[in-house]
Amino acid sequence: MQIMLSGDRPTGPLHIGHYVGSLKNRVALQNNHHSFLLIADAQALTDNMADPDKVCRNIREVALDYLAVGIDPTKSAMCVQSCLPALADIAMLYLNLVSVARLERNPTVKDEIRLRGLARDIPAGFLCYPVAQAADITAFKATVIPVGQDQIPMIEQTNEIVRRVNRQAGVSCLPEATGLLSATSRLPGVDGQRKMGKSQNNAIPLSASPATIHEAVQRLYTDAGHIRISDPGQVEGNAVFAYLDAFDEDKDALEELKVHYRRGGLADKDLKQRLETLLQKLIEPIRERRLALARDPSFVWDVLQEGTKKAHTITQTTAEDIRSALGLFRFATARRP
Amino acid sequence: MQIMLSGDRPTGPLHIGHYVGSLKNRVALQNNHHSFLLIADAQALTDNMADPDKVCRNIREVALDYLAVGIDPTKSAMCVQSCLPALADIAMLYLNLVSVARLERNPTVKDEIRLRGLARDIPAGFLCYPVAQAADITAFKATVIPVGQDQIPMIEQTNEIVRRVNRQAGVSCLPEATGLLSATSRLPGVDGQRKMGKSQNNAIPLSASPATIHEAVQRLYTDAGHIRISDPGQVEGNAVFAYLDAFDEDKDALEELKVHYRRGGLADKDLKQRLETLLQKLIEPIRERRLALARDPSFVWDVLQEGTKKAHTITQTTAEDIRSALGLFRFATARRP
Repeated sequence: MQIMLSGDRPTGPLHIGHYVGSLKNRVALQNNHHSFLLIADAQALTDNMADPDKVCRNIREVALDYLAVGIDPTKSAMCVQSCLPALADIAMLYLNLVSVARLERNPTVKDEIRLRGLARDIPAGFLCYPVAQAADITAFKATVIPVGQDQIPMIEQTNEIVRRVNRQAGVSCLPEATGLLSATSRLPGVDGQRKMGKSQNNAIPLSASPATIHEAVQRLYTDAGHIRISDPGQVEGNAVFAYLDAFDEDKDALEELKVHYRRGGLADKDLKQRLETLLQKLIEPIRERRLALARDPSFVWDVLQEGTKKAHTITQTTAEDIRSALGLFRFATARRP
Repeated sequence: MQIMLSGDRPTGPLHIGHYVGSLKNRVALQNNHHSFLLIADAQALTDNMADPDKVCRNIREVALDYLAVGIDPTKSAMCVQSCLPALADIAMLYLNLVSVARLERNPTVKDEIRLRGLARDIPAGFLCYPVAQAADITAFKATVIPVGQDQIPMIEQTNEIVRRVNRQAGVSCLPEATGLLSATSRLPGVDGQRKMGKSQNNAIPLSASPATIHEAVQRLYTDAGHIRISDPGQVEGNAVFAYLDAFDEDKDALEELKVHYRRGGLADKDLKQRLETLLQKLIEPIRERRLALARDPSFVWDVLQEGTKKAHTITQTTAEDIRSALGLFRFATARRP
């Protein structure tokens, strides 16, 4: 069985974009992978240092989301990043293997810097986060990483470091990782924004009430040129169709709807009704399980404790493996002469 | 008693420049300070990743140098940086508090980048090392740091982080540090280079044999314009006088020698003879103690183990203090709900 690592930054409730883009996959993959879910609170701090409360609070919320969608803690170890000292240890070591110029060329970092208008005022931790992610991935010796298209450069950065370590070690100490792209790429926000975001008030959370789901679907952007029902409508760039593509499993019926919509005569409200029914049906059991789980905080705590303990052992061992492969003295484990 | 932190990168044997610029001070200060000596192997890797052996080997050598000059392990805890996971933990946290622009403005980093001709190809770990140093200093809650003039910007960077942490914490969680400048600033190399360097083959190591000391003093740069003994000689920029300033305690006699040299009629070889006598006398007992200690490797090992253990407890406690002051959740120590 291969080792799979995935995870989320605990900065807000997970939403249906996470579900279709990644969580659904993880639930399926946990059956034939050694699976680890890293709740990346330390990484979340790279740009939430002014609001650590938010990060702390959401550790439990993300764990609840995982359990509610069907992550099975006996198959997937859920662990808290800040409780795994080996990750910082390995990250500090890797910082010596990557140049500042290389980090600045990382497309994901470049994009984020541009999006946030940060320029050189970015926190150093933010510039260095591809290295921290490489530390996370390699600490688990993970080979399968479910990712979005925009995360592929992170996998490349990781594998560069892996090759650098293995070259210096003269043995294959660390495995290279492969990004596993999900069938559905990113879901647009209900406001028509390119991406549904945890903290952008344009998401449908997995804990959404029926009324919230209804309102969100009503808010959903369709085709601004589709004024009268009889007008021909546009499918591309139409968020309702993007969502139907992601959630409607009756692909033939969906194809017919697209043809009909393009021709004219299909009302937005009928499409939205169809989508709402699908989403209500998807979210209801998740919401109910989540409510039930939230009533038993010790269970969630135990799940996190146990997963973190398991992850601790593995990541500490890897840190020692790396040090020893690189020929670094480890005084703590050296024999008395 | 205040807490004093000092240390060295284990990249080569310590030399008489270290002795006069710092070690002598540390031996005196250990009597009225809680003293810690950090053997900074992790930091040495920021620019020695290709030669970890050198770093590993020199941990013991530096410890021997410390003991040989009179560091008393019952007064000064000697510890190995890579065995203190709290340091990486705190450093990764601080990276979120310092901007890339701020690190690039650090004069010490700028100087080193220029000296090594590295530009943007510097390892990220090298750009970030002022942050790692701030982690070291604050992890011990050290308030007194014996430094050279060129290290003052590091103390400033540390205190900026201290203030940032305390401001966010709303309490004085960390103390500010003060750099303690030694009376003798940097000693030039025997080759006339600006600085005596561990790895630049221009140093007189504390373990130097009588013959090595003799050769080094012979090699020493004086005044290139001082051709005949009767010529007036220059004292400024003359390495022999720089050394005499550092090691000759008979200041009146030294003043007379300078007057005589400037006037003309004082031979370089007489000055060098005087200097060699002083250095042979200084180094002999150090070399002898060092040889005796080297015969008992378990003693050195025990000293390092014990010091590292003490440092581990203190730095772990500080890491928890910082997390708790910043309101960061520490799952590992949280109570089961």
